[in-house]
Amino acid sequence: MPDGLQQLEAHACFGGIQGTYQHHAQTLGVPMRFSAFVPKRDPSQQLPVMIYLSGLTCTEQNVTTKAGFQARASDLGMIVVCPDTSPRGEEVADDPAYDLGQGAGFYLDATEEPWKQHFRMETYLCQELLPLLASAFPVLPGATGITGHSMGGHGALTLALRHPELFRSVSAIAPIVAPTQCPWGQKAFSAYLGDNRGAWARHDACELLRARGRKLVETILIDQGDADPFLTRELMPERFAAVCAGVGQPLRLNMRPGYDHSYYFVATVIDSHINHHAAALLG
Amino acid sequence: MPDGLQQLEAHACFGGIQGTYQHHAQTLGVPMRFSAFVPKRDPSQQLPVMIYLSGLTCTEQNVTTKAGFQARASDLGMIVVCPDTSPRGEEVADDPAYDLGQGAGFYLDATEEPWKQHFRMETYLCQELLPLLASAFPVLPGATGITGHSMGGHGALTLALRHPELFRSVSAIAPIVAPTQCPWGQKAFSAYLGDNRGAWARHDACELLRARGRKLVETILIDQGDADPFLTRELMPERFAAVCAGVGQPLRLNMRPGYDHSYYFVATVIDSHINHHAAALLG
Repeated sequence: MPDGLQQLEAHACFGGIQGTYQHHAQTLGVPMRFSAFVPKRDPSQQLPVMIYLSGLTCTEQNVTTKAGFQARASDLGMIVVCPDTSPRGEEVADDPAYDLGQGAGFYLDATEEPWKQHFRMETYLCQELLPLLASAFPVLPGATGITGHSMGGHGALTLALRHPELFRSVSAIAPIVAPTQCPWGQKAFSAYLGDNRGAWARHDACELLRARGRKLVETILIDQGDADPFLTRELMPERFAAVCAGVGQPLRLNMRPGYDHSYYFVATVIDSHINHHAAALLG
Repeated sequence: MPDGLQQLEAHACFGGIQGTYQHHAQTLGVPMRFSAFVPKRDPSQQLPVMIYLSGLTCTEQNVTTKAGFQARASDLGMIVVCPDTSPRGEEVADDPAYDLGQGAGFYLDATEEPWKQHFRMETYLCQELLPLLASAFPVLPGATGITGHSMGGHGALTLALRHPELFRSVSAIAPIVAPTQCPWGQKAFSAYLGDNRGAWARHDACELLRARGRKLVETILIDQGDADPFLTRELMPERFAAVCAGVGQPLRLNMRPGYDHSYYFVATVIDSHINHHAAALLG
């Protein structure tokens, strides 16, 4: 294990190891935790990685304990890494609301006070965590995909669009696809990015794909419950579908009758997301 | 839904509904919660039920959110009901320790003060909850199995042995099999049953099976991790295996290398327990 990476927990699970790790994140200036599931493998075998970004209020533990991804990841030989959703700690800026500050990093680098010192989740994930994973785990080079739920779905789509060289496959579960057009996104972007609307557009999946003007990957997979209480006000997947159609980006948008925004929905569809990434990363 | 049964939560999950319910438990004198997963089915279809009893400190939510049983239960058409582990509330006796009082009911009827007023989990489960389930859900008559983890494994084994007319199949995950011989059991039985050693034996799976002198069901399934920190001091499955061998009770005891006592272990083996009960209840 690399210097400075501490294993806090390790549990046998479906033949592999479900671990929780902590390291000092230089980008963020605080200790950060993440979870990693590493399937059983031959000693020389390198495995693809699926990064799972979580939603508002979550730590790395929610999806790790509730989504049940380990069975399929074990079957397909996929490492699954779940980062925390923001820097945390007494010295880190925060807000009493659940949708701003700690637990609500929105996977971008803040430019505004008081956030810009610690809230640099994009640089942390892309430039610090990914190299750390490659040094700590048997990661197959070039075989990293990214997914996420809600705010984490926003993170997955925008990071894949902004860093196509890092992520070869992308999917999302009930994602925020147009943060510049919904209350959660407008509140967070106002705080983190100020009134620079150009910067806002550079962290909005619809705007990024429209600006790109062509497809990003073979297919983007999105699952969305039609009984999700945030569907019409915050999530609006039809906006992303329209942009995909406009630029020729293949999209499989599954509207799931009766499903809400909870981990029971994530658990129901997570295996199909692991399948999606495995097909892209191993195919 | 029967009068007095309140649905607190309902989530679509793997095609079925994962619900949380509350009712006034007359046996216990307090409101009680349980969770129930009901798979998608034809309107006239009746389904077998697996009761899952949880371990020390747990409510009905831990296994419901963490074990990932809904996928297989959906595939096989099995209702899964998870009761709470004790009566709860300000008026209910308690102890500051995690292994006595609220969260630690041990699935028996206490005979001692201050416990005997509310701690009557055996009568609650057998005489109140089972009939309630039959009136609230599409339960196939005579097709109820019981399983559990740790203290809940003790509950599953002892309730199946004490009430074979109620439970047609039984299994356990890392169960306490000899509570009269381990610290957890001795502490709880001293408090709940006093110094009546005859009563202790009537709530000890090893003693019950030895007294019965013959097999209970076709096969009892037990899974146990060999890296479980409670294995040698509290769990001791070899004691149950010896009694099974002595009375001719078929037992499949799977010692699982590297697994601990956590829900990661429960998740890893729960599908095989659902298979076990489905085979017995539908076969």
